[in-house]
Amino acid sequence: MLSAIIFLCVAIGLGAAFYYAKRVKLVKVESSNQATTDRLNEISKAISDGAMSFLSREYWFVGIFSVIFAVLMVFVLDVDGKEQINEGLYSALAFLFGAAVSCLCAFLGMKIATLGNVRTTVKATESLPGAFRVAFDSGAVMGFSLTALAVLGMYLMYLIFNTFVSDHHVLMELISGFGLGGSTVALFGRVGGGIYTKAADVGADLVGKVEAGIPEDDPRNPAVIADNVGDNVGDIAGMGADLFGSCAEATCAALVIAASSAVLTQEGNEAALLYPLLVSAIGIPICLITSFFAKLKPDAKSAEPALKFQLVLSTILMTVAIWVLTKTTMVESFSVNGIEVTNNEVLICSLLGLWGGLLIGFVTEYYTSHTYKPVQEVAKASETGAATNIIYGLALGYQSALIPVIALAVTVFVSFTIAGMYGIAMAAIGMISTIAVGLTIDAYGPVSDNAGGIAEMCELGSEVRDRTDLLDAAGNTTAAIGKGFAIGSAILTAFALFAAFLTRANIPTLDLLEPIVFAGLMIGSVLPFLFTAQTMKAVGIAANEMIEEVRRQFREYGILEGKGKPDYNKCVAISTDAALYQMFLPGMLVMGTPLVVGFLFGTKALAGVLAGSMVCGVVMALSASNSGGAWDNAKKYIETGAHGGKGSDAHTAAVVGDTVGDPFKDTSGPSLNILMKLMAIISLVFVPFFNEYGGYLLQFLTN
Amino acid sequence: MLSAIIFLCVAIGLGAAFYYAKRVKLVKVESSNQATTDRLNEISKAISDGAMSFLSREYWFVGIFSVIFAVLMVFVLDVDGKEQINEGLYSALAFLFGAAVSCLCAFLGMKIATLGNVRTTVKATESLPGAFRVAFDSGAVMGFSLTALAVLGMYLMYLIFNTFVSDHHVLMELISGFGLGGSTVALFGRVGGGIYTKAADVGADLVGKVEAGIPEDDPRNPAVIADNVGDNVGDIAGMGADLFGSCAEATCAALVIAASSAVLTQEGNEAALLYPLLVSAIGIPICLITSFFAKLKPDAKSAEPALKFQLVLSTILMTVAIWVLTKTTMVESFSVNGIEVTNNEVLICSLLGLWGGLLIGFVTEYYTSHTYKPVQEVAKASETGAATNIIYGLALGYQSALIPVIALAVTVFVSFTIAGMYGIAMAAIGMISTIAVGLTIDAYGPVSDNAGGIAEMCELGSEVRDRTDLLDAAGNTTAAIGKGFAIGSAILTAFALFAAFLTRANIPTLDLLEPIVFAGLMIGSVLPFLFTAQTMKAVGIAANEMIEEVRRQFREYGILEGKGKPDYNKCVAISTDAALYQMFLPGMLVMGTPLVVGFLFGTKALAGVLAGSMVCGVVMALSASNSGGAWDNAKKYIETGAHGGKGSDAHTAAVVGDTVGDPFKDTSGPSLNILMKLMAIISLVFVPFFNEYGGYLLQFLTN
Repeated sequence: MLSAIIFLCVAIGLGAAFYYAKRVKLVKVESSNQATTDRLNEISKAISDGAMSFLSREYWFVGIFSVIFAVLMVFVLDVDGKEQINEGLYSALAFLFGAAVSCLCAFLGMKIATLGNVRTTVKATESLPGAFRVAFDSGAVMGFSLTALAVLGMYLMYLIFNTFVSDHHVLMELISGFGLGGSTVALFGRVGGGIYTKAADVGADLVGKVEAGIPEDDPRNPAVIADNVGDNVGDIAGMGADLFGSCAEATCAALVIAASSAVLTQEGNEAALLYPLLVSAIGIPICLITSFFAKLKPDAKSAEPALKFQLVLSTILMTVAIWVLTKTTMVESFSVNGIEVTNNEVLICSLLGLWGGLLIGFVTEYYTSHTYKPVQEVAKASETGAATNIIYGLALGYQSALIPVIALAVTVFVSFTIAGMYGIAMAAIGMISTIAVGLTIDAYGPVSDNAGGIAEMCELGSEVRDRTDLLDAAGNTTAAIGKGFAIGSAILTAFALFAAFLTRANIPTLDLLEPIVFAGLMIGSVLPFLFTAQTMKAVGIAANEMIEEVRRQFREYGILEGKGKPDYNKCVAISTDAALYQMFLPGMLVMGTPLVVGFLFGTKALAGVLAGSMVCGVVMALSASNSGGAWDNAKKYIETGAHGGKGSDAHTAAVVGDTVGDPFKDTSGPSLNILMKLMAIISLVFVPFFNEYGGYLLQFLTN
Repeated sequence: MLSAIIFLCVAIGLGAAFYYAKRVKLVKVESSNQATTDRLNEISKAISDGAMSFLSREYWFVGIFSVIFAVLMVFVLDVDGKEQINEGLYSALAFLFGAAVSCLCAFLGMKIATLGNVRTTVKATESLPGAFRVAFDSGAVMGFSLTALAVLGMYLMYLIFNTFVSDHHVLMELISGFGLGGSTVALFGRVGGGIYTKAADVGADLVGKVEAGIPEDDPRNPAVIADNVGDNVGDIAGMGADLFGSCAEATCAALVIAASSAVLTQEGNEAALLYPLLVSAIGIPICLITSFFAKLKPDAKSAEPALKFQLVLSTILMTVAIWVLTKTTMVESFSVNGIEVTNNEVLICSLLGLWGGLLIGFVTEYYTSHTYKPVQEVAKASETGAATNIIYGLALGYQSALIPVIALAVTVFVSFTIAGMYGIAMAAIGMISTIAVGLTIDAYGPVSDNAGGIAEMCELGSEVRDRTDLLDAAGNTTAAIGKGFAIGSAILTAFALFAAFLTRANIPTLDLLEPIVFAGLMIGSVLPFLFTAQTMKAVGIAANEMIEEVRRQFREYGILEGKGKPDYNKCVAISTDAALYQMFLPGMLVMGTPLVVGFLFGTKALAGVLAGSMVCGVVMALSASNSGGAWDNAKKYIETGAHGGKGSDAHTAAVVGDTVGDPFKDTSGPSLNILMKLMAIISLVFVPFFNEYGGYLLQFLTN
């Protein structure tokens, strides 16, 4: 029965992905004009090739890194000794499997997005609702395939490991390797991808628009394809891996905590034990139903309401679904970590997360859309120059974190109080349960964005461009909502992992007045700042390499004089390599810190570091994302004619803010999600090692 | 014997202040040219009047606020019931006394600074060493009088209250009111003063330099006097009140904690009990000796080495002094909060703080002086525009916090481990013990800066201006060091107060895994961001009022056409009022949050909030100060001819960074010190109230 439900949900998800992919592919890439048809195919192939070349290069790095890390796991994690197996080996296998599934998801997402973008352009020559639906369908392929594969992957892990591991603690901890795998790919996707996308963007703009004076998306710019590839790299591969990680990690955390409950691990209560996985699974059919309601009227002025309706509808339907699921599968009450929990309380936690996510999304929209006062204030401040634009934008970001943090604090407080650490994990899963719809909308953005770029490069006329612009504008807003949602789920996931880590590390109370804990808290809170500095500078360095290359091509090939053709591939390759090299330092910081702290100072110090990096990280992430989004939209607002419009001094000032905002919102901000989650899950996976060997330096110091 | 030492140190301090004041006053404000003499007197009187008018207006607000707050204290703090007195009344009296002494110190500092600035200008017409010495002497008056009055004030409180309060706990808590008074004045000085100084600066620059095209410090600019007044308001009154607060609060915290030790409160161990106060007292003669070594050679190329030597020398001498003091007055061992502490351990804590402060100062210098790579990188980034200048500057600030935070974490860890909360308090006192020298150097800065402005306004020629510029350049660097030092001592002081608060609130362990504590931690960590946003925007709003006024005067009085004279006083009044009104919101946030949280959710929630705001606040404060300092010096570096020099595109970009940096380094960054300390001391002072009435909402929610 349990297996049947999960497999059915997975089948529905894969079927939906297949169905939507079919619909996208059915759109023929052709135009009445043969030259245009050729051009469409040529450009779309260039973007698709670039995206695949980025992915293959990235996966090469991911592969090498994962294998090395897996070997490390095999050797250092075989310390538990409770089971007659090498826990390190199985953790490592789960890790590699998680990484592979995450890579597969990102690959599928990129593939369909690069098919969907040009087809959206083609449909846009006919009608707005048609183009909207193609972009939406492309996103849906990503949304459903990723969710289905994540659930399937974890369930398979459970079924396989369950056959030879009897201790539930060990079992669930092995499965956590799956989450770690997903999160490691997310590190490359978010940090490497984030650096890539902005290096390409800034490089293309600075040499093309500013130095050579050619328009945006001009095909003569050698970096133009890299820039279009970048949109996919950041918002599809990066966002996908990030949310895949959140989904897998939150579920793993919940399972690890659930494993310490006597009632849940009893024979016959398997459905209750796997309840966290069931919530994620049941989200798939709910999101499918929701997706049927996505349509646009021909005379629509904006695609935003249709997309926002998706979020609201899925949340409402999911509320009902979780209610039914809880009543039917969850045991009436159980005890976990010494707290007595009823199924009603579990329900409350899940729903708090679910609705909290929606709230955070809408607050994010308020602070980043130019329909509201905050962004308009930033636009107005641009009148007195770039400096005031920057000051107001930064202040906006700092301020915007308040309500989301309060919402998260309330969620943490309530779910922690009524259901302990299990409650936190369920809140995280509740927030992430509508992920299929969230991802659909996220992926919709870069598809529409690319569609506009292709329309420009193929010179399809202003009517087509107007339609794609309208689709794209909605994508910007929903991208901001999606980021807020991703951050919210990241902190809850990180907290759930943190809770699971404490459970496994046998830390029932974490006294802030122990010197090492407070010192850890201080160190932890400086990490998000350091990480932000590293990623921001990485974008600058990678962008410089891109700038040099574009200048060289202009100079040596004589592209602007019409003598030679730009070498798109070279630009893609250069910014790929630069991005992947530049992520070394921040990557080391994230992966190395927990290992070093845990080994030298033990699990309590590490717990302090995790707590500090979480509470500071969430505020930094929200601020950076929202400041960046606000600067972007303040510029767009001025371009609609406010404060002197395009070409005015205010516009020049707003462009400075927008450029500062780029690494904020697309590199540093989203990368902080990975910092929070990855540090926590590494700590969790390496707990057996820390328990056995950690903390000797601290003991030496204090004796 | 004990009294003799303390009173002797105080007498030395007051004598030194009197001696240095005499030396400054002995310099005659005259020139060979009568017109110049008149002009010198006229300008200096305008600045002095402006400064006094700011102070009197500020103290009007401080007075009203303090009286209301004191009344509140009388009513809500009489709940302890252990003694036959109204604790609220005596706390309130201590509070008013602390506020009054702090005001007196700031008044003296401002008075001597506005005497010293013009005299430095006069001396600069003769020789560099002479001018240096006048500026230094002016600073010394502030340094010594403030330290002596702080020590005297606290000791008097102790002597008076000791006559009728027998319970040491209650006694020390009453004295804490003194620290709260000092900190409340600091709120007005740092936040209000910080807004004032930058509003005047930005207002003067924007209309004068940019719109009207007249040079900086041009006497036709109606805001020019307000701008010069602002330097004194921010770096003398603000910094003075801040460090006065740190000194008083750290001592109060140490005394409160010491009061819970059975050995220290025994008859005959009074010297050991008052050891924290003795360290501060003994710093006075040490700093006096140090100050005798402050001199400049006639052919000196920079005043920086001489000033830095002061810091190093005072630290070395103080090391010896603390060693002797500890060995002679401290008991061999005692137990506090359940930890056995020896006098050697107390010594280690004090020295850790002392040397940690110096280290933080020098790291700050590394990140903000253009002699080193970080600022040069920001300057180089200006070549590609304002956006990269901003990105690199922000990244620099974020990065610069790492080493200071590690140093602080080590200090906290070691002193907390070996001597518990008492150790933290002693580290804070150790760091602040050379405050007289620190303040001297801090106050030296605005005096030299003003001296340059006066030289410009009196048209004294380039040779004089070169000399004052040389003095001023050193002031910029030492100001950065001073800020780092102020932040370091603020976090340690805040932590010491936090520890005292926990002691008094009977919270022996603070479990981060209690839901309300973690929720508090989350809320606490968002506060520094919100506060920064509020103060940054406050500068913008206040500057706008200034801009309107300057435009009005230009328009209505015909100043630029030579028809009318500017009304300096109006500008001073406007920016004073704007600053004081704009500090309402951030002030409410700082003072209201602990009261509301403590009342509704109880002391544990409040402890979480305090911890969160401290760990995030210190990173934010360091980042903001250092980013601001780096932008300032990157601009100055370009002005020396690098990257195209003055007038180049790089310079234009660097000016944007400098303007963004102004509120960062002079308003938001330093104000965060107050946020950390004031929230902690309010919590401490109101503990009896929270213990009695706090946390009902939490109880209601969790039952």
